[in-house]
Amino acid sequence: MQVWKDYQEQHKDKFLNELLELLRIPSVSARSEHKEDMIKCATKVKERLLEAGATTVEIYPTPGHPVVYGEKLIDPSKPTVLVYGHYDVQPPDPLELWHSGPFEPVIKDGKIFARGACDDKGQFYMHVKAFETMVQTDSLPVNIKFLIEGEEEIGSRNLSDFVQSHKDLLKADVILISDTAMLSLENPSIDVGVRGLTYIQVEITGPNRDLHSGVYGGAVANPITILAKMIASLHDENNHITIPGFYDDVVTVPDAERAALAKAPYDEAEYKTDLGVSELWGEKGYTTNERTGIRPTLELNGIWGGYTGEGAKTVLPSKAFAKISCRLVPNQKSEKMTEVLVEHLRKIAPPYVQFKATPDHGGDPYMTPVDSVEYKAASKAIEATFGKTPIPVRGGGSIPITALFESALNCKTIFLGFGLDSDNLHSPNEKFNVANFYKGIETIPYFHKFYAEMKK
Amino acid sequence: MQVWKDYQEQHKDKFLNELLELLRIPSVSARSEHKEDMIKCATKVKERLLEAGATTVEIYPTPGHPVVYGEKLIDPSKPTVLVYGHYDVQPPDPLELWHSGPFEPVIKDGKIFARGACDDKGQFYMHVKAFETMVQTDSLPVNIKFLIEGEEEIGSRNLSDFVQSHKDLLKADVILISDTAMLSLENPSIDVGVRGLTYIQVEITGPNRDLHSGVYGGAVANPITILAKMIASLHDENNHITIPGFYDDVVTVPDAERAALAKAPYDEAEYKTDLGVSELWGEKGYTTNERTGIRPTLELNGIWGGYTGEGAKTVLPSKAFAKISCRLVPNQKSEKMTEVLVEHLRKIAPPYVQFKATPDHGGDPYMTPVDSVEYKAASKAIEATFGKTPIPVRGGGSIPITALFESALNCKTIFLGFGLDSDNLHSPNEKFNVANFYKGIETIPYFHKFYAEMKK
Repeated sequence: MQVWKDYQEQHKDKFLNELLELLRIPSVSARSEHKEDMIKCATKVKERLLEAGATTVEIYPTPGHPVVYGEKLIDPSKPTVLVYGHYDVQPPDPLELWHSGPFEPVIKDGKIFARGACDDKGQFYMHVKAFETMVQTDSLPVNIKFLIEGEEEIGSRNLSDFVQSHKDLLKADVILISDTAMLSLENPSIDVGVRGLTYIQVEITGPNRDLHSGVYGGAVANPITILAKMIASLHDENNHITIPGFYDDVVTVPDAERAALAKAPYDEAEYKTDLGVSELWGEKGYTTNERTGIRPTLELNGIWGGYTGEGAKTVLPSKAFAKISCRLVPNQKSEKMTEVLVEHLRKIAPPYVQFKATPDHGGDPYMTPVDSVEYKAASKAIEATFGKTPIPVRGGGSIPITALFESALNCKTIFLGFGLDSDNLHSPNEKFNVANFYKGIETIPYFHKFYAEMKK
Repeated sequence: MQVWKDYQEQHKDKFLNELLELLRIPSVSARSEHKEDMIKCATKVKERLLEAGATTVEIYPTPGHPVVYGEKLIDPSKPTVLVYGHYDVQPPDPLELWHSGPFEPVIKDGKIFARGACDDKGQFYMHVKAFETMVQTDSLPVNIKFLIEGEEEIGSRNLSDFVQSHKDLLKADVILISDTAMLSLENPSIDVGVRGLTYIQVEITGPNRDLHSGVYGGAVANPITILAKMIASLHDENNHITIPGFYDDVVTVPDAERAALAKAPYDEAEYKTDLGVSELWGEKGYTTNERTGIRPTLELNGIWGGYTGEGAKTVLPSKAFAKISCRLVPNQKSEKMTEVLVEHLRKIAPPYVQFKATPDHGGDPYMTPVDSVEYKAASKAIEATFGKTPIPVRGGGSIPITALFESALNCKTIFLGFGLDSDNLHSPNEKFNVANFYKGIETIPYFHKFYAEMKK
């Protein structure tokens, strides 16, 4: 479609500058001090959707951060695509490891460095600009709805209520999400599954106050030591998770699918060099791609307790804390697995400490069938702009809301991700390649076109 | 000595107010931002020593915080007592657990609440006021030297150089230190030993940057998990320390001494209630008093890594850290044990992480012989003011410099402590009972008197 290409070529600088403007807003959903920034960001998203051609855009307040909804409905006989994305970002810590300010986007070597560059401002904004392309060239082939939320990074806490109470508003034939990665521009891929999640915070209390480690050390349980023992026991010598019942609901992936997954390009030496590790670690019996795709995991996301400042303090602390999350695969259910995890930890907490767990957020795993019209339209769109058939892969991350979309809206989700695993999501120096940003804007209209044609 | 009693009774309010003034100076040696406060505190100590009757007081700069030295030499034929103490204090964190400001001393229920109230401003200041009592009543029985340093809480880093290069200045017959506890005013005791110390910081590095725990989780070692496994392995199921060679130099305490130690009043139910724990923890085969007195220990003083803020962040961190210290008993040597600890940790660090250890500070254990003139003078002083023979006990804490005093100055150290184990040393709401403060001032002159008489 030359008309799309021309429009995009003409406006490429504008597209990029608008994204940079969005990236300058520190919309960190996890931190209450950014409440105003969240509203500012939602307002900016609304403005941009209206400019792009949406006929209606509303900011819906929630008990947490607001949801932005926009639409352009052209013809009830045409299919409706619901684009989901999120304008909130992960906290930028640790700040000292960023080469430039997380909210002062910098373009260097063809990469946009900023918190949210890829996850997910850069990616949902491709949809806004693809939408603009189609509207401005008078070639929109479908009805489009946008649902851009502000709580994805904190588990979409209020989105399920919103979805349940706005089923008619959100009614669609397919949900389209760009919040995942592809292997590379040379090896385009489509995620056919995302893992589920359960996330908890654990608090271990030993003595009722911080103690002098000389006066009391050796006579009372140190909560750090106890927490370490509990954590250490969660993986066995083969790095299997030891929690009874943890694997009960895991569906065995057929050999054929494992063989297909094994075809994805993977260079172990390169992978290790990129991460700066001399040896990999993981569950025995599975490849790296399987460990991050088809297998559930348990990771420590944070730990703290006692004195963590400069110099020395000989304290035996009262408390130690950890943040623990599990990635889940079909057919593990987040609620059940949270309970399995918490109850196991409660059981192994020894009697000389007090145990407390606070569930944070979660979501069920989700799979897109590769034989569906939706997947085929996505695959054909990639072919149109990349000249290659995309490889179906399993993504390691989680988009907790997708399982709910399926049950509440009764439609499938397509993960049309243009990020890269190396984009430092959730890490310092998050980036998004400018080329991927433009490639996404170029590809997305084709999805709508092919989907409209196939659904006829 | 009625004249002492009268003087102290007349000046009791002044004594207390002067201490409160000292406690208002946040002399936290571990934190570089308190450098000026350290100088301010040293200057105040100098002023007070001069006012009390010292003929010379000097502030000696060191590469770290300054040392205050003062003296009043009355007669070369009389014995010389070197009083050692420290004007620096532990960091006050965690601040939110203090009921009143750590540097805004408050007297409540007969207790002085402030950082340093007991450790060691309140205790060394008893010596300044006892000295004043004797000088002002013209009854000083010995030559007195004061060595009040500013780096005890960070391992007396520069004091050993100072002592080595000022042996003549510091020459004495005995060293007197009030920086320990007694069982209670009803059951006075004298510490006949303090444990040694080794303190290190450990850094475990996994991947070269923080990673998304979904994208990489399961495929690369999580430094928190690895650190937890390493820590967990340091104690076996009987809470013995598993480090090879750790116990090699530990002198077996004779049954007779263990029996004597067992006579110290100890109420397990009360101990547990005070600490708020339902079960105690410790090395199998030893009592609580033995665990904190005659046995070496390994404690985690701090741990941190990954996301420790509000809410959730699904990060697989690059690094995890811990502060680990061991209390040592005769004849373990701090330097050797630091090496044993570090080398063991290095050995058990698996190949998929990088290990780094930074030794912080340490000191050797120290014992005072109970059959010495020094001990007898101290025992008799306690008898004079408490009406009871003190119980000799082993202290759990460490005063790293004592072993050096013995080797460099060739004299014994007496620990004449008036604190209580429940004084929350190194913890929020550190306190010192006003009664103990006055009892110390009352008792100390008797030590000098009896020591002068016995040394004749």
